[in-house]
Amino acid sequence: MTVKKVLIDCDPGIDDALAIALAHGDPTLDVVGITAVGGNVPLEFTTENSLRLRDYYGMTAPVARGAGRPLVREGINAGNVHGVMGLGEVVLPETASELDPRHAVDLIIETLAAAPGEISLVATGPLTNIALAVRKEPRIVEWAAEFVIMGGAYTRGNRTPAAEFNIMADPEAAAVVFEAGWTTVMIGLDLTHQARANAQVRARFEGLGRLESELLTPCLDFYGRFPDYQELGPAIHDACAIAYLIDPTLMDAVPARVDVETQGRFTSGMTVTDFKAETRNALVPTVLDQARFWDLMTEAFQVVAKAMG
Amino acid sequence: MTVKKVLIDCDPGIDDALAIALAHGDPTLDVVGITAVGGNVPLEFTTENSLRLRDYYGMTAPVARGAGRPLVREGINAGNVHGVMGLGEVVLPETASELDPRHAVDLIIETLAAAPGEISLVATGPLTNIALAVRKEPRIVEWAAEFVIMGGAYTRGNRTPAAEFNIMADPEAAAVVFEAGWTTVMIGLDLTHQARANAQVRARFEGLGRLESELLTPCLDFYGRFPDYQELGPAIHDACAIAYLIDPTLMDAVPARVDVETQGRFTSGMTVTDFKAETRNALVPTVLDQARFWDLMTEAFQVVAKAMG
Amino acid sequence: MTVKKVLIDCDPGIDDALAIALAHGDPTLDVVGITAVGGNVPLEFTTENSLRLRDYYGMTAPVARGAGRPLVREGINAGNVHGVMGLGEVVLPETASELDPRHAVDLIIETLAAAPGEISLVATGPLTNIALAVRKEPRIVEWAAEFVIMGGAYTRGNRTPAAEFNIMADPEAAAVVFEAGWTTVMIGLDLTHQARANAQVRARFEGLGRLESELLTPCLDFYGRFPDYQELGPAIHDACAIAYLIDPTLMDAVPARVDVETQGRFTSGMTVTDFKAETRNALVPTVLDQARFWDLMTEAFQVVAKAMG
Amino acid sequence: MTVKKVLIDCDPGIDDALAIALAHGDPTLDVVGITAVGGNVPLEFTTENSLRLRDYYGMTAPVARGAGRPLVREGINAGNVHGVMGLGEVVLPETASELDPRHAVDLIIETLAAAPGEISLVATGPLTNIALAVRKEPRIVEWAAEFVIMGGAYTRGNRTPAAEFNIMADPEAAAVVFEAGWTTVMIGLDLTHQARANAQVRARFEGLGRLESELLTPCLDFYGRFPDYQELGPAIHDACAIAYLIDPTLMDAVPARVDVETQGRFTSGMTVTDFKAETRNALVPTVLDQARFWDLMTEAFQVVAKAMG
Repeated sequence: MTVKKVLIDCDPGIDDALAIALAHGDPTLDVVGITAVGGNVPLEFTTENSLRLRDYYGMTAPVARGAGRPLVREGINAGNVHGVMGLGEVVLPETASELDPRHAVDLIIETLAAAPGEISLVATGPLTNIALAVRKEPRIVEWAAEFVIMGGAYTRGNRTPAAEFNIMADPEAAAVVFEAGWTTVMIGLDLTHQARANAQVRARFEGLGRLESELLTPCLDFYGRFPDYQELGPAIHDACAIAYLIDPTLMDAVPARVDVETQGRFTSGMTVTDFKAETRNALVPTVLDQARFWDLMTEAFQVVAKAMG
Repeated sequence: MTVKKVLIDCDPGIDDALAIALAHGDPTLDVVGITAVGGNVPLEFTTENSLRLRDYYGMTAPVARGAGRPLVREGINAGNVHGVMGLGEVVLPETASELDPRHAVDLIIETLAAAPGEISLVATGPLTNIALAVRKEPRIVEWAAEFVIMGGAYTRGNRTPAAEFNIMADPEAAAVVFEAGWTTVMIGLDLTHQARANAQVRARFEGLGRLESELLTPCLDFYGRFPDYQELGPAIHDACAIAYLIDPTLMDAVPARVDVETQGRFTSGMTVTDFKAETRNALVPTVLDQARFWDLMTEAFQVVAKAMG
Repeated sequence: MTVKKVLIDCDPGIDDALAIALAHGDPTLDVVGITAVGGNVPLEFTTENSLRLRDYYGMTAPVARGAGRPLVREGINAGNVHGVMGLGEVVLPETASELDPRHAVDLIIETLAAAPGEISLVATGPLTNIALAVRKEPRIVEWAAEFVIMGGAYTRGNRTPAAEFNIMADPEAAAVVFEAGWTTVMIGLDLTHQARANAQVRARFEGLGRLESELLTPCLDFYGRFPDYQELGPAIHDACAIAYLIDPTLMDAVPARVDVETQGRFTSGMTVTDFKAETRNALVPTVLDQARFWDLMTEAFQVVAKAMG
Repeated sequence: MTVKKVLIDCDPGIDDALAIALAHGDPTLDVVGITAVGGNVPLEFTTENSLRLRDYYGMTAPVARGAGRPLVREGINAGNVHGVMGLGEVVLPETASELDPRHAVDLIIETLAAAPGEISLVATGPLTNIALAVRKEPRIVEWAAEFVIMGGAYTRGNRTPAAEFNIMADPEAAAVVFEAGWTTVMIGLDLTHQARANAQVRARFEGLGRLESELLTPCLDFYGRFPDYQELGPAIHDACAIAYLIDPTLMDAVPARVDVETQGRFTSGMTVTDFKAETRNALVPTVLDQARFWDLMTEAFQVVAKAMG
């Protein structure tokens, strides 16, 4: 079995927490680093959540703190969806562990530089850290084995009618990242809205011990109360990006040209997706094999839960 | 039977031509004026086509020439879809009839002023004439019995990934119109892409005599060759706006706030549609009863064809 | 002596009032129409002021009401500079005269159409009426003998650091007008700030009877209290545009390309003036012969004052 | 005599080269680092020029390579003014010296961190490095003793009618920097156009040995051929920023609010300067004491020339 090395840039966030669990529990992935960025909640919380989740799940990857605000504009957050501190009402155990002393941007650059072509880079929050890394060391674009984001949409947004939260939170960073020269796999809302943790799904998480009782149940209960999620269940956006790394055949994907709107009055942060463009910079999954996705998730959670006891 | 008076602002254009036929043939509508605007093809052609179609169908409403270019920016056209002169390769009989001497803007204002609350205004091209009329005489907003446009989309555009042609052709005019104070019924692409003149539909047009042989068949053949229309058949966008006037129960519609993007690099001309906004300025049909729509169309065409002989 | 026919589009406004007096009193100009636009104060006041000024000065030109709000965006006004009703605290005598029944746009079009090449068009307010006229009848661009505006600046604005009031009040209209195909003579702030009604100047207005006591003195006292005008005296912007019509040799002027910014966050309404551009659309006066300008003004005011008694 | 420590971020560039000579030769400044950014010419040249100038002038400060392209958009350059490699036709002696191994951003952060409140930061190129440093380590804003840039204008630009080159080259970076929380001393074109190396000035450089014959004469001859500089002599922009550090009393300066336009069609890169704003983020020198400025320059050049032999 081949194991992919993965570096995760994230802003936990409930669905980030589940994405990290998936990455850790899946036997084909090896998480080699976690970098935090301000996003769903402020940087101090996403950093602390990253560190505590790492320890809570029993992981060993270094965790580094990144950018606290967007590349150019003022920050926004999604505390209304994820709770003030980012994990609903869950407070994970404090940890004596320390952050990696490096800035996230340097951890990303140095990790990729140390193993060119071997590490998959995935970003599940605003793209500030990635954009800063691209500008500081443009060669990361070649060094990353693949680059996958959760962000954007090719029909409608969630933060605004036009824009998805992660892109809206830092449109200029997203523009930098999409124009960097690599192929960005854009796991957007059109795909992630197919990954709903509804009652059927949640029934499969029963018996997962502390992972279920301490994290999954309270987080998903909280997350599911967000109005948009009440009908079909909460969308576990970020986990889809990890799932793509594990098995891209879970999704139908279409090549496209994606331009990020940075100038509109009503459309700032929109990922304008042209499926007919001649020059393409993105691969856009459109259809999720939901059954297999939840199989992956459940199996990974079982692994994590078992190790946690 | 109540008869609605209708004033049609249009840019024929193949689907405009069919929309006018629907309006003329349907027994519940009375077309009281036709105003031309530059759009699908330049103003000289949309004006001439309006006049010739009026005579060809045996109508009597006055026809007036309107704005030849957008409110602020340079014009675009859709000659690639509608043919250089607007009706594919069809050339209608020349006519000795004369245009109404008034500018379209004045015909619109004076017609509505003469019967406040009695006339439905429908626009199936770029919104330049309507915006100019609103600015010259803001009271038309109160005088119009209802206001329906074909234009926009709440997911994806056709001229660009973000923008539909009619709005893209004059975003500033569209912004003026949506902000004018009335409720704009926005018949956008999400709805009109459900109105496909596919083989099954076209079979119902057989036996319509000159209307079929001279106009419908050559126009739809031409229109159907546009790449986007080859799979499902050409979308008869503009006729949907007329159909709404005839029977709004043909469509499910949702109130919304629509803002027109005029400033974006990649999104100019997008109708940003917020279904959750508290202040609404639009009603957005989302689902078309296709069977009943094509019944309406076929019946109206029969009436027109019969009169034409 | 050759007499120029002049059509004045304006938003009185204190300096508009003085500009009209100059146009009326100067023997080389014949005012053939006055059209009002919303600007310094709302349209109802600029229209009423236009009508009353016409009668007060003993003029006979028709006066028409125009656009009450900008082409696309929301209106702004300068009541802080000109007083709530536009003439400081001056209330001119009521008049039984009636407005021309036509909309300003039609008065402009029909007046120019009736004498192609013979009438100078001057605009001293926001350019909404002119833009609407250009869009309704593009040939006015050829019919106007010359086109002069008070508006813009090539260094700094007054409404914002970047934008002058008249352009800021309707940037889209200004964009339409500058791109219409004629040469716009842009009498901007860099020029008009040289026309200060300081104490020396005002001493020359003594002995002008009712004109002085009822209009000039109270208006200029009020106008001069605006903070920007306290040091050097109030700038009589609009009169400079009329002065140019009377004698262009009063000013040094430089050809330029002027683009109106409509999209900036901080620069909307700026007249971006490129003196090195190859394709030019404007003539930009830069230096005013102040002595001769005030001679013109004083002489014209004497004529008006004498006729008024 | 107090000596100020100075960290120079630059893009040499002819006037950067002279600015560095001024900083080195003036007895009150101690250059503690030089960081290069892409700007006047591409990064590879500005970095090499920085290193060679350091050695040529006999300086010892570390030199680091920074950002090769702007924060968000595509780069521009001014090779037409400074020559393809940045110093006109001058090619400085090759050097065996090595760059500091750190990225410019890290050299800036670490240098300032090591002596909070003691080091003046000056930027004479596009603000990309500074913006990246601010985002990576926001505390540099407090650590810098003062922050001075050459860039911007409060009337007219040079790259476009609205924008000065350094700001135009990276408007988003400039926006980040001006909004970072410190007071930016903006040495803009209105000031630097007063610092012309005309014939009188250049006569004072005679007798400066190799500095004159190898660098000053060929550079200023080349620079002076740029059309804008032919009448009054080339403006030595960047040296004015160093001169401010040496003696701020050389200039009259006015507090202001500066916003950088990033969204305009014609105004992108403009430093919109509001002298009346209540909240200020900048200090804007407006008048240069030319005599004392050239005294400073001449004396510093003498020191450098003497040491060079």
